[in-house]
Amino acid sequence: MSRHDAIEVITAKRDGGVLTDSQIDWVIDAYTRGEVADEQMSALAMAILLNGMERHEIARWTAAMIASGERMEFSALSRPTADKHSTGGVGDKITLPLAPLVAACGVAVPQLSGRGLGHTGGTLDKLEAIPGWRAALSNEEMFAQLESLGAVICAAGSGLAPADKKLYALRDVTGTVEAIPLIASSIMSKKIAEGTGALVLDVKVGTGAFMKSLPKARELAETMVALGVDAGVRTVALLTDMSTPLGYTAGNAIEVAESVEVLAGGGPADVVELTLALAREMLAGAGRDDVDPAAVLASGKAMDAWKAMIRAQDGDPDAALPTAKESHVVTAPSSGVLTRLDAMDVGLAAWRLGAGRARQGEPVQAGAGVVWHARPGDAVTAGQPLFTLLTDTPERFERALASLEGGFDIAPDGTDFAPSPLIIDRIG
Amino acid sequence: MSRHDAIEVITAKRDGGVLTDSQIDWVIDAYTRGEVADEQMSALAMAILLNGMERHEIARWTAAMIASGERMEFSALSRPTADKHSTGGVGDKITLPLAPLVAACGVAVPQLSGRGLGHTGGTLDKLEAIPGWRAALSNEEMFAQLESLGAVICAAGSGLAPADKKLYALRDVTGTVEAIPLIASSIMSKKIAEGTGALVLDVKVGTGAFMKSLPKARELAETMVALGVDAGVRTVALLTDMSTPLGYTAGNAIEVAESVEVLAGGGPADVVELTLALAREMLAGAGRDDVDPAAVLASGKAMDAWKAMIRAQDGDPDAALPTAKESHVVTAPSSGVLTRLDAMDVGLAAWRLGAGRARQGEPVQAGAGVVWHARPGDAVTAGQPLFTLLTDTPERFERALASLEGGFDIAPDGTDFAPSPLIIDRIG
Repeated sequence: MSRHDAIEVITAKRDGGVLTDSQIDWVIDAYTRGEVADEQMSALAMAILLNGMERHEIARWTAAMIASGERMEFSALSRPTADKHSTGGVGDKITLPLAPLVAACGVAVPQLSGRGLGHTGGTLDKLEAIPGWRAALSNEEMFAQLESLGAVICAAGSGLAPADKKLYALRDVTGTVEAIPLIASSIMSKKIAEGTGALVLDVKVGTGAFMKSLPKARELAETMVALGVDAGVRTVALLTDMSTPLGYTAGNAIEVAESVEVLAGGGPADVVELTLALAREMLAGAGRDDVDPAAVLASGKAMDAWKAMIRAQDGDPDAALPTAKESHVVTAPSSGVLTRLDAMDVGLAAWRLGAGRARQGEPVQAGAGVVWHARPGDAVTAGQPLFTLLTDTPERFERALASLEGGFDIAPDGTDFAPSPLIIDRIG
Repeated sequence: MSRHDAIEVITAKRDGGVLTDSQIDWVIDAYTRGEVADEQMSALAMAILLNGMERHEIARWTAAMIASGERMEFSALSRPTADKHSTGGVGDKITLPLAPLVAACGVAVPQLSGRGLGHTGGTLDKLEAIPGWRAALSNEEMFAQLESLGAVICAAGSGLAPADKKLYALRDVTGTVEAIPLIASSIMSKKIAEGTGALVLDVKVGTGAFMKSLPKARELAETMVALGVDAGVRTVALLTDMSTPLGYTAGNAIEVAESVEVLAGGGPADVVELTLALAREMLAGAGRDDVDPAAVLASGKAMDAWKAMIRAQDGDPDAALPTAKESHVVTAPSSGVLTRLDAMDVGLAAWRLGAGRARQGEPVQAGAGVVWHARPGDAVTAGQPLFTLLTDTPERFERALASLEGGFDIAPDGTDFAPSPLIIDRIG
C-alpha cells in the first residue's frame, strides 16, 4: 500500500476533490491502526459531509472498512440467504415476525442486529424481554442455527468492520453522523461483511426517521443499493413512511407481544403489510419468488419457526412477558378523527419511559413503552383512552407526557382525511 | 456563561447557521479547558472553513480567544504605539529596519514576533544571528525598553491568547489552517491582546505567500481590518506582492546585513520602498503623520535606534555576523532580461539550505540562505552569477538547487517587460 499522509487526504476532500483508491485504503487502515488521529478523521468526516463523495469513492470506502475486519461466508449453507436492514423507526418490530417468516419460506436469514440508542428501539433489546433469550452467539452457533432452523437474530460480533465501529463512535460526538456517504458505507460495510446473498433495505422517511425528507431518504437508498450491487449482493430498498409509528406499540416486551400477534395471523394491518412486502423482496432476492409469504404466515409455519428460533437461543417463547409496574392513561381531549400521530414524539415518550437508553451500555426496562389506541384515520371519542404509558419508574411519566403533548391532531368528525401510504417507493 | 454542548455548536455551523455569542464564548472556553475535545474542535474548524463566518461571529471568536489569556496595556507609555504584522513572505526582513525607524520618528513599536516554520523566515531567527542578542524579555523589561528606546522586538509570551495557541497546533495537523476567519482571528487575537494602539498589516499575495490569489488576500485583509477597527485598534492593511522575494537575500545573517544597509541609507529599492510605506501608515495610525520617515532614515537616527535596540537585548550591533562554511554559485544559462524570480522556489531553497526549520524547536543555521544577484527587470549575461547558495552542510546543496530549477525565467534581450508593482492596494 502506498504511503500518504492525513493532511493530504483531508485537504483533497476539503477542496472538493475525489479521493483516490490508494488514499481511501490508506486512511481507513491508518485510522484503524491509530496512525491517523481522531481529530484528523473528524475533520475528514466533516469535509465528506459537506463536500460529498462520488459513487466509486463510497464503494472503495466501504470496501476498505470491510477489509479492516473479518468476513462471514454462508455459501456452504444448504439454502440461499437474505437479510433486511431498517434505518430505524418507532415501533419498528418488523424483524421479529419477518425473520422466522422468511425462514419458514425456505430462505435463511442471518440477522446481525444492534441495541437501541436514542428514540428508536433496538431489536436485541426487544428480544431480551423474552425470559432466558440470549443475544450473543459464537460464529459456529450462528452457522449451526442458520442451517438447522433458517433464522438467527443475534448480536453482531466485534470482528466485522472494526474501522466502522471506531468511526461511528467518533461521528457520534463530532456532529458528523448525518453524512450520506458515511451512513451508507457504515450500514453496507457490515451487511456486506456479514455475507448475505440478498439484502432488502427498509429506508424510513418522516419525523420519526433519521431522514426527515424524501429526497434525502431516496439519496441514501440509492447510494446503499448501488453499494450492494457493486459488491455482488442482490440489493433493493423500500422507502417507507415513518411520520407515524408502526403498529400500536413502542417498547420492548409490548413490541414482542405485537409481533407474536402477527405470527399468529392477526396483528396491526400496517405491520402485516410491511412484513409481507419485505418478505416478498427477500424471497425474490434469494430466487424464491415462487413462495407466497402470506400463505406461509396463515399456515402457522412462521410461528413454529419463531418458537424454534427463540428456544435455540435459550428463550421461552411461551413464558409470560414482563410488564411495567406503573401505567398512566391519556384520554382523547375531543371527538373526531385522528389525523396525525407523530412518530418522533411517540418514540421520545417511549424512550423517556425507560424503553431506550441515553448512553451505550445503560440497561433498558423490558416493560416500559407507549401503547396508542388509535391510528391516523381512526375515529376517536372525547374521554376515550388515547395512549397508555408504561414504566417501572413513575417519575418518568411527566417528561413522557410532555413529549406526547402536541404529538397528535384530532380533526372534527366528517373531516376528509386519507392516511399517507406506508410503502412510498421501491429502489433497485 | 450559559451551557452549550459541542455537537450543538458543530451542527449549527455545519448546517450553515450563524453561531451565537454565547455559543462562541462557550466553545472557546470549553476547548481551552479541555471539555471540548480536539476531534470536536477540528470538525468545527472544518465546518467554519467550508461554511464561513459572518463579521460579528469572527469578532466574537477573536474576543473569546483574547479573553482566554492576559492582555497587555501600553497606555502608561509617554508616546503612542503602533505595530506591524506581515502574513509572511520570502526575504521579508522589513521588521528589522522598520521598528527602529518608527521609534526614531517618536512612536513606540511593541513588536512581539515568532520563529519561522517552513519556507518563510522568522524575525527572531534573523535577529538571533547577531552575536549575543536574546529574544526572551519579561513584560517589565519589554515595557522599560519601549519607554526608554521606543522599540522592542522580542518573543511573544505564552500568556497571550492561549486558546489560539492550542487551536493553531490543532489546525496545523487537521487540514484546517486555510480558513480565513480562523487565520484572521488567530493573528488579530494576539495583536489586540498585545495592546497596540495602531496596527498596519502587510498582507502578502503571490507564489511565496500564504495567500496565492488577490481575492483571497483581499478578503483576509478586509476581515482583519474589520476585526481591528471593531476592537478599537486603528488598523490598515497593505496588499503587497510576494510573487518575487524581497531584496536580494533570504536567510538569517544575510537578511540582517541587508537591513543594516537600509538603515545606513542604502539597500535594495524594494525593501526601502516597503519600509517607508509601512512606516508612514504606522505613523499615521499613531497620529504622527507630520513626521517624514524618509528624512529620519536619511538622518541616521534610525540606525542609532537600531544599535540601541540591539544592545538593550545584549546583542553587539557592530560585531561581524556569522557566515556559512560553504557556498555554491549558480550562473545564468543565457543572456537577456530576468522576467521571473519565484518567491516560493527561492524560499524553499533557503529553507533546504538550513535557514529555516521543518519542525518547531529545531535549530536554524545563522549563515545559511540564498543571495540572488538580479531581480526581475534586470539584464543578465550568460555565465554571470545568478544565485549564491550558502550553508554549513554542503549535502544540502542538491535539494536547494532542485528547488531553484524552474524558479526563474530569462527572456531574450529587447523583450518588453515591466515588473509588477510592489504595493498592490491599501485597505482601511
